[in-house]
Amino acid sequence: MTRDDALALDADDPLRSLREQFSLPAGVIYLDGNSLGVLPKATPARVQQVVQQEWGESLIRSWNTAGWITLPQRVGDKIAALVGAGPGELVVADSTSVNLYKVLSAALAIAETDAPAKRVILSERSNFPTDLYIAEGLAAERGYELVLTDEPEQIEPLLAEGNVAVLMLTHVNYRTGRMHDMGALTQRAHAAGALMLWDLAHSAGAVPVNLKGNGPEAEAADFAVGCGYKYLNGGPGAPAFVWVHPRLADRFWQPLSGWMGHAAPFEFTSQYRPAPGIARYLCGTPPVISMAALECGVDTVLAAEAIPGQGLAGLRRKSLALTRLFIELVESRCAGHGLTLVSPREDAHRGSQVCFAHDTAGYPIMQALIARGVIGDFRAPDILRFGFTPLYTRFVDVWDAVEHLKQVLDSGEWREARFNQRAAVT
Amino acid sequence: MTRDDALALDADDPLRSLREQFSLPAGVIYLDGNSLGVLPKATPARVQQVVQQEWGESLIRSWNTAGWITLPQRVGDKIAALVGAGPGELVVADSTSVNLYKVLSAALAIAETDAPAKRVILSERSNFPTDLYIAEGLAAERGYELVLTDEPEQIEPLLAEGNVAVLMLTHVNYRTGRMHDMGALTQRAHAAGALMLWDLAHSAGAVPVNLKGNGPEAEAADFAVGCGYKYLNGGPGAPAFVWVHPRLADRFWQPLSGWMGHAAPFEFTSQYRPAPGIARYLCGTPPVISMAALECGVDTVLAAEAIPGQGLAGLRRKSLALTRLFIELVESRCAGHGLTLVSPREDAHRGSQVCFAHDTAGYPIMQALIARGVIGDFRAPDILRFGFTPLYTRFVDVWDAVEHLKQVLDSGEWREARFNQRAAVT
Repeated sequence: MTRDDALALDADDPLRSLREQFSLPAGVIYLDGNSLGVLPKATPARVQQVVQQEWGESLIRSWNTAGWITLPQRVGDKIAALVGAGPGELVVADSTSVNLYKVLSAALAIAETDAPAKRVILSERSNFPTDLYIAEGLAAERGYELVLTDEPEQIEPLLAEGNVAVLMLTHVNYRTGRMHDMGALTQRAHAAGALMLWDLAHSAGAVPVNLKGNGPEAEAADFAVGCGYKYLNGGPGAPAFVWVHPRLADRFWQPLSGWMGHAAPFEFTSQYRPAPGIARYLCGTPPVISMAALECGVDTVLAAEAIPGQGLAGLRRKSLALTRLFIELVESRCAGHGLTLVSPREDAHRGSQVCFAHDTAGYPIMQALIARGVIGDFRAPDILRFGFTPLYTRFVDVWDAVEHLKQVLDSGEWREARFNQRAAVT
Repeated sequence: MTRDDALALDADDPLRSLREQFSLPAGVIYLDGNSLGVLPKATPARVQQVVQQEWGESLIRSWNTAGWITLPQRVGDKIAALVGAGPGELVVADSTSVNLYKVLSAALAIAETDAPAKRVILSERSNFPTDLYIAEGLAAERGYELVLTDEPEQIEPLLAEGNVAVLMLTHVNYRTGRMHDMGALTQRAHAAGALMLWDLAHSAGAVPVNLKGNGPEAEAADFAVGCGYKYLNGGPGAPAFVWVHPRLADRFWQPLSGWMGHAAPFEFTSQYRPAPGIARYLCGTPPVISMAALECGVDTVLAAEAIPGQGLAGLRRKSLALTRLFIELVESRCAGHGLTLVSPREDAHRGSQVCFAHDTAGYPIMQALIARGVIGDFRAPDILRFGFTPLYTRFVDVWDAVEHLKQVLDSGEWREARFNQRAAVT
């Protein structure tokens, strides 16, 4: 494998034109799209249109004339198409944490009714912390026990004990990139009488997600939340999304019962009457500017559908080819420097990121890479994390990133790396 | 009073230069800043800077280098200065509804400990609906009774009964513009052993607010939330704010315990440890683009401080002069057309808006006004609502708006007004 071979892979890549959708800064190899996706070229003009025309000129009228009032549903329908949900089933709203609070509250209320003896929320200790914090609070408030596994293999035996009310998992682990088998685990949760809640923060737009399953009804999940600012390229702190299976969406009045989730918000009645379906998972007035930017980001992923034979399956094929190549090149070209693969080697278990551990120098090695313009991130205590967004990452970027890593390690320049960068937002 | 007199008032207005901060569309008299404030001239460039440089060029590094991570505090400190709170006591986050959920949860948890026998949340039936919906849900969840008064005069007798845990009021009523005496009511709530929670949605940036009181300690409120997109000119769906008195901020772990409220969010620990003070009222990752726009809006209000002898007191003087003039002109020039003043005539009880009721034709009259470029809004069943933002509303605008209203009424053209406009977001 040479750099020319990588260039040849790019030349043959049926998705290569998708990169033209993005404003990529010069001199940077960006392997952190799993933290903050890059800026789509369409976004600045769209944001200016919202600010200057829709807000500046049309003012309050834009809630109707520019369709602000239906943005949560319109962008939601686009995201639904990326995660195997139907139109009208998913809305954009609030943050992932807030949405998780809504759906976990709903799940516990439903479990309380349908299976009151089950008193466990099951998750993984390695789940993204905010998910655990929200669950910790709700568990204490509602009288549930939050049980955390240390290894994925513990999930099934714990389910089999029969006291799990809700299984709450993040599809792709933020630190390791390990991906769960969504259909199989959902089916096992249901077989054990548990509700299934997925966090898609590191999945949506990056790996195939099929919330409603491919086969038996039991494969269809119950709840999901996800993030707008990672692989969906929605911009810093972009609003998040929330999905509830239609069979459950009407069953519970979620506790963040704000006016946007009312059946008739503009009647201004003093009593709450939840909207039918997923709209009741809305709460307050949505941040329109950030939501317009999110729509541009989602469109960059949907653009893959316009390439014959590609779409999300094509993105997955390319993502796997990129991460596989990165693993191969690091292991062959950087051998002997103490890097250990943390992400799964098996394609089926790997999301769109690759992590290596380094016992002693993970942080300064990443600093040295960033100083060279190769942007990944470090996750304590020892993980170098590299995200590969197939929309804009090229095979030659993989080659060049590994070349930089090799030079950093061979030269020992990481020993001089300045400790001037705090951990960035996941 | 003639139009020339109004022009003379503008010429003498010490705050007249503040209007230059805004992009006001031609041909429009905008009296709906209490629903959505107008676009500050500084906002488009600042938003582009965030999108193109901070996000597009610096990407993930901007969490640190551009200070995204401290935006909730930085913008919060600016708003604190407008509502009588201290630096470090207020943060920008989420929506008003979500923030209300946090503080009402906290208030109930504190009341549960300090005064467990008190089982009532007291509010007004005319409060903004989302506040009532959130309270309705929490009351049911926590075993409280939500009692709603029909008249402000009922509040004190109900407090005197001694079973109110939390008094939750909106400072300026969204429909009538009636303003409560914050210090006096807070003191009475405290005297009755109740906690005091204020919604400042229609106050912040428009009327003087002194959350910590001017005199005795009992005048200092306990909790407050407020809105960024009305008088703060933060843009559609701008993030909201939340304040908790420092004596209470550390007492409760609010239920939306997301990672941004963690004492050390970047340690990624699996257990929640709330940040000290108001930071624990943060939850998920904030919408950076919308928050940057909000900062520009808040700056337009703070600009009043730079005019000698003016500041918030000057804004209040002008606001009262505008609303007083509007009332006088409507009552004198539009007499006999069935309009009845709904807002308080007494300055001390009036916010920065004026509402008139019309028994039969409020909606088409407002439609006819909007068709002429005079933008107010209609609130069912019978209210024409006009907001007067002293930052950009001129006395001549008041004169011209009344002239349009007079012509609409005299000509009967409202009978032809098209019913093509849905109620807009409050």
